[in-house]
Amino acid sequence: MFTVKIRESIMIAHSLPDPFFGPAQNMHGATYVADVEFQSVQLTEQNVVLDIGEAKSITKNVLSQLNYQNLDELSIFEGQLTTTEFLAKYIHDQIRIASRDIFTGTIKVCLGETHDAWASYQGD
Amino acid sequence: MFTVKIRESIMIAHSLPDPFFGPAQNMHGATYVADVEFQSVQLTEQNVVLDIGEAKSITKNVLSQLNYQNLDELSIFEGQLTTTEFLAKYIHDQIRIASRDIFTGTIKVCLGETHDAWASYQGD
Amino acid sequence: MFTVKIRESIMIAHSLPDPFFGPAQNMHGATYVADVEFQSVQLTEQNVVLDIGEAKSITKNVLSQLNYQNLDELSIFEGQLTTTEFLAKYIHDQIRIASRDIFTGTIKVCLGETHDAWASYQGD
Amino acid sequence: MFTVKIRESIMIAHSLPDPFFGPAQNMHGATYVADVEFQSVQLTEQNVVLDIGEAKSITKNVLSQLNYQNLDELSIFEGQLTTTEFLAKYIHDQIRIASRDIFTGTIKVCLGETHDAWASYQGD
Amino acid sequence: MFTVKIRESIMIAHSLPDPFFGPAQNMHGATYVADVEFQSVQLTEQNVVLDIGEAKSITKNVLSQLNYQNLDELSIFEGQLTTTEFLAKYIHDQIRIASRDIFTGTIKVCLGETHDAWASYQGD
Amino acid sequence: MFTVKIRESIMIAHSLPDPFFGPAQNMHGATYVADVEFQSVQLTEQNVVLDIGEAKSITKNVLSQLNYQNLDELSIFEGQLTTTEFLAKYIHDQIRIASRDIFTGTIKVCLGETHDAWASYQGD
Repeated sequence: MFTVKIRESIMIAHSLPDPFFGPAQNMHGATYVADVEFQSVQLTEQNVVLDIGEAKSITKNVLSQLNYQNLDELSIFEGQLTTTEFLAKYIHDQIRIASRDIFTGTIKVCLGETHDAWASYQGD
Repeated sequence: MFTVKIRESIMIAHSLPDPFFGPAQNMHGATYVADVEFQSVQLTEQNVVLDIGEAKSITKNVLSQLNYQNLDELSIFEGQLTTTEFLAKYIHDQIRIASRDIFTGTIKVCLGETHDAWASYQGD
Repeated sequence: MFTVKIRESIMIAHSLPDPFFGPAQNMHGATYVADVEFQSVQLTEQNVVLDIGEAKSITKNVLSQLNYQNLDELSIFEGQLTTTEFLAKYIHDQIRIASRDIFTGTIKVCLGETHDAWASYQGD
Repeated sequence: MFTVKIRESIMIAHSLPDPFFGPAQNMHGATYVADVEFQSVQLTEQNVVLDIGEAKSITKNVLSQLNYQNLDELSIFEGQLTTTEFLAKYIHDQIRIASRDIFTGTIKVCLGETHDAWASYQGD
Repeated sequence: MFTVKIRESIMIAHSLPDPFFGPAQNMHGATYVADVEFQSVQLTEQNVVLDIGEAKSITKNVLSQLNYQNLDELSIFEGQLTTTEFLAKYIHDQIRIASRDIFTGTIKVCLGETHDAWASYQGD
Repeated sequence: MFTVKIRESIMIAHSLPDPFFGPAQNMHGATYVADVEFQSVQLTEQNVVLDIGEAKSITKNVLSQLNYQNLDELSIFEGQLTTTEFLAKYIHDQIRIASRDIFTGTIKVCLGETHDAWASYQGD
């Protein structure tokens, strides 16, 4: 199994309006350091998992839709608790769609939210 | 597959009394930077793998039993070679027991012992 | 010169309402990984720069006033552009005041805002 | 599942002579920070995955054949595009062969090529 | 004293043709993870050390002249031993020139060449 | 000002027998990740701060006298509280002595003791 992983980051605001989240019910924010991993059992004829330039471009484009946004105001997240786990899957799903012409393997998105906490989603 | 990972650290003394370990047969010590990962195929209704506050509290409580201890003097480790691998499984098993009311998925414990060596245990 | 450095992090929302900041004029947010350094030419009789437990407690207390907050709504920051540089100095000044009974040396606060950008303030 | 991971690094020159690689068709170079992971379902009687000293020695020996080399001039790579993915598998295969008397589990080699890009190969 | 620091990286080939450098006399290469720090005693009226977007743009532009290059073939380095220390100063000097209309404080360039070695140059 | 920095680590046991240290009065231990920095206003004729191979060799030799030791049993530390600050200065002083034939500039030793705490000593 081969993998390629790239790192980007975004800065967002949101609130988590459920008593479960205690102080995070307030409007607050986060930097997510996004590690996006592409996994494949085989390499292309150029000996790569995929075109890393394309992978970066797709990832930046997906992330740019969230970067510098207040997630509470985005209609795509209406009625959703935008936890780190939820956002990892959302970003995964968007990268999956945007990369389907160049990559069909497993994708993993890991979001680092502080120096001591991370959440990820991996899907086939 | 979703994961949540948290980081804590502990400082312990021990010796590894078997000729196999060369200079580590001496009483020495280590900082273990513990990365504890909780894996789950589904999220709760709050869109989380588990309550991260609970996960941190359980992890700190398990680690506090080892922190600032000389492992050679703990009866629970009598007759055991307390290698990093062994301790990763021990911490895993204790977190498994302490979290069983709130989490039933896979748990992975990775202990960083220097800037260039790690050992981990993952169990279902 | 001796130093002791500790790391904590906070998650905040804010906006930077000046055209200079482009997309960061939007309500967005950040995780700040705060490295707080205490510098001293001498050690105490216990061979330390200061009581690291006290230093952590003071730092956590200062940071807790910002953590999970929307800085735009805090009266202490009214009319201020809460840039990373500004916040590094604000946190420095608050730690300075809160630690004055136990420490009189130089303090440096460095805030990491992404995996590739930091700002700091150091004052005597 | 237990793992042990060690870190070493090498510095090499090479070119990637295919239009696919754009500017990387030029003679250029890289530092690869190599994370080598050994995975095993059981521990030895000394409570280890394998002798970490042996693992380091084998890894250093394999890497030393590439360190400070121009890969374009090595006959073993003639006609090959020495991408990071390809090199991760090559290093994996060499460590596999060199360690077969002391380890039969899964080996993963992850090469960090910048602060924001990695490639890996894992084989049974 | 305020600072802003940004991180970028480049990949180059070169040789160090002096017996002093042992195996590094060979054509080899390196990834340099470049941390560029801008230091200032005062902030602008926008509460920043300098426009971080401009700082990134200037830094990327300076680094792009070296990225994916064989330094042995660049006329600007003819007859020079392109050590990490030398390159840190070269990059510093180029960023100094390129930023002189927007920044007049101290600049520090630190180049990480492996996971365990760095060189830097700081100039007023 | 030029600097070169290298990283090594050691694993030691010790106790801090003063009520000031609370639980660290127990026999416990630590991994110290040692960052050793050599600072110089000028480069040698080979464009380096100093011979990095010599610097590594001197540093490893100094650290090897502490590695895998119980500091409480070393006569050189009798009656001393071997805090991280104290050890940073001790290692600095030993590297100073061992390197005096090849380096006369400033030396800084920073010891990382966990993922969120460091102490350092810098001397001319």
